[in-house]
Amino acid sequence: MPKRYSLGLDFGTESGRAVLVDIETGQETATAVCPYRHGVLDECLPDGTRLPHDWALQHPADWLEVVAEIVPSVLRQAGAAPEQVVGIGSDFTSCTVLPIDKKGQPLCLSPKWAKRPHAWPKLWKHHAAQPEADRINALAKKRREKWLPRYGGKISSEWLFSKLLQILDEDPEIYHEMDRFIEASDWIVMQMTGAERRNSCCAGYKAMWHARDGYPSKAYFRALHPQLENVVEEKLSKDIYPLGSVGGRLVGELARHMGLATASPVAVGMIDAHTAVPACGVTAPGTLVMIMGTSTCHMLLSRREKLVEGISGVVKDGIVPGYYGYEAGQAGVGDIFAWCVGNGVPESYYDEARKRGMSMHQYLTSLVQDQKPGQSGLLALDWWNGCRSVLVNADLTGLLVGASLTTRPEEIYRALIEATAFGTRKIIETFVSQGVPIKEICACGGLADKNPLLMQIYADVTGRELKVSASSQTVALGSALFGAVVAGKAGGGYDSIADAAKKMARLKDRSYVPNKENHKIYKQLYAEYEKLHDYFGRGRNPVMKTLKEIRARVLAS
Amino acid sequence: MPKRYSLGLDFGTESGRAVLVDIETGQETATAVCPYRHGVLDECLPDGTRLPHDWALQHPADWLEVVAEIVPSVLRQAGAAPEQVVGIGSDFTSCTVLPIDKKGQPLCLSPKWAKRPHAWPKLWKHHAAQPEADRINALAKKRREKWLPRYGGKISSEWLFSKLLQILDEDPEIYHEMDRFIEASDWIVMQMTGAERRNSCCAGYKAMWHARDGYPSKAYFRALHPQLENVVEEKLSKDIYPLGSVGGRLVGELARHMGLATASPVAVGMIDAHTAVPACGVTAPGTLVMIMGTSTCHMLLSRREKLVEGISGVVKDGIVPGYYGYEAGQAGVGDIFAWCVGNGVPESYYDEARKRGMSMHQYLTSLVQDQKPGQSGLLALDWWNGCRSVLVNADLTGLLVGASLTTRPEEIYRALIEATAFGTRKIIETFVSQGVPIKEICACGGLADKNPLLMQIYADVTGRELKVSASSQTVALGSALFGAVVAGKAGGGYDSIADAAKKMARLKDRSYVPNKENHKIYKQLYAEYEKLHDYFGRGRNPVMKTLKEIRARVLAS
Repeated sequence: MPKRYSLGLDFGTESGRAVLVDIETGQETATAVCPYRHGVLDECLPDGTRLPHDWALQHPADWLEVVAEIVPSVLRQAGAAPEQVVGIGSDFTSCTVLPIDKKGQPLCLSPKWAKRPHAWPKLWKHHAAQPEADRINALAKKRREKWLPRYGGKISSEWLFSKLLQILDEDPEIYHEMDRFIEASDWIVMQMTGAERRNSCCAGYKAMWHARDGYPSKAYFRALHPQLENVVEEKLSKDIYPLGSVGGRLVGELARHMGLATASPVAVGMIDAHTAVPACGVTAPGTLVMIMGTSTCHMLLSRREKLVEGISGVVKDGIVPGYYGYEAGQAGVGDIFAWCVGNGVPESYYDEARKRGMSMHQYLTSLVQDQKPGQSGLLALDWWNGCRSVLVNADLTGLLVGASLTTRPEEIYRALIEATAFGTRKIIETFVSQGVPIKEICACGGLADKNPLLMQIYADVTGRELKVSASSQTVALGSALFGAVVAGKAGGGYDSIADAAKKMARLKDRSYVPNKENHKIYKQLYAEYEKLHDYFGRGRNPVMKTLKEIRARVLAS
Repeated sequence: MPKRYSLGLDFGTESGRAVLVDIETGQETATAVCPYRHGVLDECLPDGTRLPHDWALQHPADWLEVVAEIVPSVLRQAGAAPEQVVGIGSDFTSCTVLPIDKKGQPLCLSPKWAKRPHAWPKLWKHHAAQPEADRINALAKKRREKWLPRYGGKISSEWLFSKLLQILDEDPEIYHEMDRFIEASDWIVMQMTGAERRNSCCAGYKAMWHARDGYPSKAYFRALHPQLENVVEEKLSKDIYPLGSVGGRLVGELARHMGLATASPVAVGMIDAHTAVPACGVTAPGTLVMIMGTSTCHMLLSRREKLVEGISGVVKDGIVPGYYGYEAGQAGVGDIFAWCVGNGVPESYYDEARKRGMSMHQYLTSLVQDQKPGQSGLLALDWWNGCRSVLVNADLTGLLVGASLTTRPEEIYRALIEATAFGTRKIIETFVSQGVPIKEICACGGLADKNPLLMQIYADVTGRELKVSASSQTVALGSALFGAVVAGKAGGGYDSIADAAKKMARLKDRSYVPNKENHKIYKQLYAEYEKLHDYFGRGRNPVMKTLKEIRARVLAS
């Protein structure tokens, strides 16, 4: 019998990735990656029109172009016939969102609107809608909107309504011209299937949609902006499909470009980080999944909906169908280590690293991997990029204490790793103490895959065993799992994400077990971390915010 | 009439320096520097005997050898006859202190004792007597010794009785063998004059001597160690001479080596930093003198004796005869900037600095000199080497707050400069609020001489005009001033240090005037500095000490 495959498509910030996964074994038979031709548009539109500060757009043609490149590539590599691909799943960055016309065409592709920045897809990291986010938050707080606590008390400038309101504020003509405003994850599925079926993951985490309560009320939207009263009916959709639903069947031109059989089942879209959860084999409550890269995403399932301090969101069917999915996050992790390497390492270290054929990360690691916890006398607060969970405060900044004339750069590097581990412990303890139990931890992503010292420190700090995904592309693998689910057992796949994960997800043989001695010392250091965390983070000394305000005034003068 | 000169001798940590100064104009006609042959003995004795951790010794033969080199050199350079040198002043590091025999010979030069580390001169930065200092402090605190507050409530491991007690503890035979224990500043004057005349500066700042009360009581010394009851009579001297006194007249062999006329008047010894005060033209109350280098010394005169928080000492005749001399200090200043340059600057900066032919300090300065206060969003506590004044706590450590992913190395560099300026402001405000007025500020030393950005920041932070000494060797110049004083007007010099300073001390034409706008911003930042200073420095959050304790435990295990 010929092998059966599921296709996972992962639309990232800079490139798209396809992985062809053996349904039976989970083996990642073929992978292809292709960068977007236009990359991130953060300085100007393709025609040279300048963009303001903090903007970030993408070109929708890039997404389609990439699909036509990477899908045939994985089929070729695997020697697979189109019929062997039993299902397709896809994930996308989020909230990446675009205005489309009645036919589903992006407004930016029409010559009439191509010169208008607001006609283009806004990438997740478009940060220019902060004033709109502030208004959304202030009004929700004032009205005590009950959806606000589900998002840690604050919604982000990155999310859907912030971006939509920015369009209405700054280019109302585009707002009125658009037929709908849609997540790129839903749009790409619509291109494959011809049908619009919006997914619960994006709607729940990025558009304040709730399985029972729906969107915020008309009264709220009217108070926000008179023209927004009917925004859901006019620009969005109330039909939201849980993850694992069939988005449709592959049709038309795109199927030809992909070299796939028409009528293959396609799963509804998903947020990239969230698909990593089943790809780590996690389809039930109790296991925290950490996707560790430049920042870290923490995902957790539960049967119950709790309002946990500082979570980024809790969404029914948002990660795995049938459960409440919790998301929390650390805004800076790998980014902070990269900052340290880029700014805080003397010339002699570069010479030495080159001599040993090491990257700077490897060299610094080699210098501190045998240090004991507490040996450097340093302690840091991991807020170089603000604090997402649990304080939800972008005005917080990094702090280092304990420096002396003998402090070495590699010790600062290690202190920053430890600080992010303390931040993770804080998130874990908050979940547990507020009624969402965590029995196990599983990690994936670049840092989990490649940095054993960091993982051991996380195990020692949290006092918990850390398991690691065997895949180095868990997000794409997760999409393939959902592809297998929409095929169903009858179609050569699986009937549930749990069945799919059981067969297709794998962990590394080696896990990280906490060293008891180290955990004891880290417990003492964590007590100090907590004291600083609360002192600077909970308002007793708002110096971080004050410094930012002084800075803003100085720069404005 | 031939020119008249005064000779200033400055015995530093690594070398000795001579400066020949024109009595009439203060012109530094000739300078010579010669490094000590044995440098600092901190690993082993000259014969290879290993030294324990934290030891630092010097070789007394080096001092004499250097004198025989540099004095003839300045005479040669100036084309001066021995008779033209009307007086000699000298300063020394302190507390650098040695055991001598009945003839005044250092014990270490006798073959019988040469292998015993405790027979050698202990350099000021010998730090191995901390346990003894701790005992001295604990006992003084318990007994409420009234001399303790004159030293900010804590005496240092660097000072005379700490070092003497260490000898008694660890090598009692040396303790009993020594005839006397003497400051190197007094010993070198004794070599020149043949007479022992101990100076008030060292006795007051380093040996708890007080012009009215004398040394601590016999009862205190007995409680400290039974054999110390009569330590003053047995090992020291009660004859203490105010600065500006004649130590004696040049005699014997050393005069010949120096190429000087015998019978030239020699001033009593002085501590190196303290001679800088008259060399800045300051001989009366109201002007704070800052000697700014790797660390900073703050000197101030007053008619009254006040117990000011965190001063290193207040001594009658300790700086300028007739006044109480106050000393305060910052334990790390230039050292902190050097740490930053040595540890926190990326490779590309070195390439760029080389391309521009700049030192790294110059290059970093060029990058931030146009920044406004507050622009970086950073704030630091300048405790990389502990905090001397006003908290007198070596367990405090450096802190940086406000770091973000866009923080640049040069911004940290500038934040560290600002932190030391805030530390200076704290010292100034403490003096003023506790009854010792400051009307003017004058700076000297390497940083004051060479770093205009730093000086402007200090002016902006303190809101005061900063004057700067015109001399780049104020310490040696100060010694020459005292040489002129011991000559007296009749002998071709001056009758008072005030007269000498009026003629021989000069300031740079350019002073640093505070920028009002910047001062306003720094006022806000200083308020934040003070909050952190008190929170971490006054016991509310002892995290810095806790981290040091954890570190010590970890390293010991």
